[in-house]
Amino acid sequence: MRLRLLPRDEKFFELFEVDTANVVAGAALLQEMVNNFDRAEELAHRIEEIEHEGDITTHEIFDRLNRTFVTPFDSEDIHALGSGLDDVLDFVEATADRMLLYEVGQPTQELQQLVEILVQATKEVEKTVRLMRDLSQSRRILDHCIEINRLENEGDRLSRRALAQLFRTAQPMDAIKWREIYEHVEMAIDKCEDVANILEGVVAKHA
Amino acid sequence: MRLRLLPRDEKFFELFEVDTANVVAGAALLQEMVNNFDRAEELAHRIEEIEHEGDITTHEIFDRLNRTFVTPFDSEDIHALGSGLDDVLDFVEATADRMLLYEVGQPTQELQQLVEILVQATKEVEKTVRLMRDLSQSRRILDHCIEINRLENEGDRLSRRALAQLFRTAQPMDAIKWREIYEHVEMAIDKCEDVANILEGVVAKHA
Amino acid sequence: MRLRLLPRDEKFFELFEVDTANVVAGAALLQEMVNNFDRAEELAHRIEEIEHEGDITTHEIFDRLNRTFVTPFDSEDIHALGSGLDDVLDFVEATADRMLLYEVGQPTQELQQLVEILVQATKEVEKTVRLMRDLSQSRRILDHCIEINRLENEGDRLSRRALAQLFRTAQPMDAIKWREIYEHVEMAIDKCEDVANILEGVVAKHA
Repeated sequence: MRLRLLPRDEKFFELFEVDTANVVAGAALLQEMVNNFDRAEELAHRIEEIEHEGDITTHEIFDRLNRTFVTPFDSEDIHALGSGLDDVLDFVEATADRMLLYEVGQPTQELQQLVEILVQATKEVEKTVRLMRDLSQSRRILDHCIEINRLENEGDRLSRRALAQLFRTAQPMDAIKWREIYEHVEMAIDKCEDVANILEGVVAKHA
Repeated sequence: MRLRLLPRDEKFFELFEVDTANVVAGAALLQEMVNNFDRAEELAHRIEEIEHEGDITTHEIFDRLNRTFVTPFDSEDIHALGSGLDDVLDFVEATADRMLLYEVGQPTQELQQLVEILVQATKEVEKTVRLMRDLSQSRRILDHCIEINRLENEGDRLSRRALAQLFRTAQPMDAIKWREIYEHVEMAIDKCEDVANILEGVVAKHA
Repeated sequence: MRLRLLPRDEKFFELFEVDTANVVAGAALLQEMVNNFDRAEELAHRIEEIEHEGDITTHEIFDRLNRTFVTPFDSEDIHALGSGLDDVLDFVEATADRMLLYEVGQPTQELQQLVEILVQATKEVEKTVRLMRDLSQSRRILDHCIEINRLENEGDRLSRRALAQLFRTAQPMDAIKWREIYEHVEMAIDKCEDVANILEGVVAKHA
């Protein structure tokens, strides 16, 4: 409904597409790590690099925002979207780091399942962001957002069962460590949902 | 101070009133559960149903937002308010679920007191939302917001004492479980405060 | 880029300067407390007073916001900034309180280091807020925001190492207690970063 008298800066879409591809790559590496734990050190290091690349893209987005007058959608939403994607990778990296730091040993099956959900959620985020170039596709955008919400619910249920299992069988100190690792994956999934909520909000404003 | 050249969509107020009544009902059921723990399974199931109904209302709000041009207040605030109320019920349901899942046994007196504060906070939220139809009542709206803030502070103090008590007397594994349950009730109360903050913000914008 | 046809209310800047000076004072007292733990009770009490003063300033900001038509920047950002500064002090006070309540004894060296980072972050926040009177200084404002981000990253790394150390050496119950104390300092630092993000957003909007 807003007039477009000035050319929008298309570069933002490119930056967000680079950023989301990077988030997908980070989640895929975390999955490789929890499924091949003998290569954990190497993969954690690659995740750290991916997280660093993400930081660079985030700052490029913020810098451009600071220099651009006509943005494709509200500057605060661009800012929130950049921060949200950054948060996803931060939690991916923090998960990988903690697994090594806490010396917890082989990932549990529940962790592998949680990370699978995270991988799916990041792929949905990537698809949603790609559609943002054309807000007339609001129905398809919202469908992906609903799917991200569904994945977040599934992750939540899985994580509850994983904790109950842990509290029944583990030693207190192991329970503390694994609980924190599960929580970090869950937070990464939550941040995907936050991104979906921001995009839903953008669609609502342009309806 | 904004002109009203077009009719506002009054349906949003109705939806928020349905939504807050549902939040109040969810908190009341949680209170019934912690005070009558022999009926825990049945009450947890009813809380789950209430949470599901809340999800339906939330989606109705978001869908309508997506189809409505003139909203009674900023679309991002409507979105944030819908999300905030959804969050309250999510934490209510997660609390009930965890009590069963972790097999912690009889609720502590501290938990019963925390839930009592949550019940009061949801009732204040309901009153505040009802007043939003007429923003000229900003003084009364803000008074309810202050009361919600006060309740959140009270919950925070109570929860600190409950944890200190727990850490003095419980076994580590029980401390981990109860701490998580207390935290979830506290988060539900926090989310009531978030809703109050959103409403305060709306009042500020229309001052 | 927005026109300034009406005088801006300069009082907001004064209130934010009072508020940030208070945040700096609170963090400094927490540092005194962790470095001189024999005076813990007295210093925790003074932190509580500082936190109470902060609440008064926050309400003054919100009240004024509610009565002012032309604000120096968007009313929602003023609201978010007031809330963010309030959150920093809340976590400072909660940290002090928990150390006494949980009877954890002498602060660890890691806690002292974390609090040092918090002190630096609050000083950067104070400098950034002082620059907001003149948004043409956006480069200097953004530089301080980058420094706050750097401090948050440093705090995060330190806190991870502190937890790994704790999980290797402490008893489970002590691990639970210290973990919560570390987390609260980290949250206070995170909230400084949130404040920086809000200020970055304000700069972006006025670019």
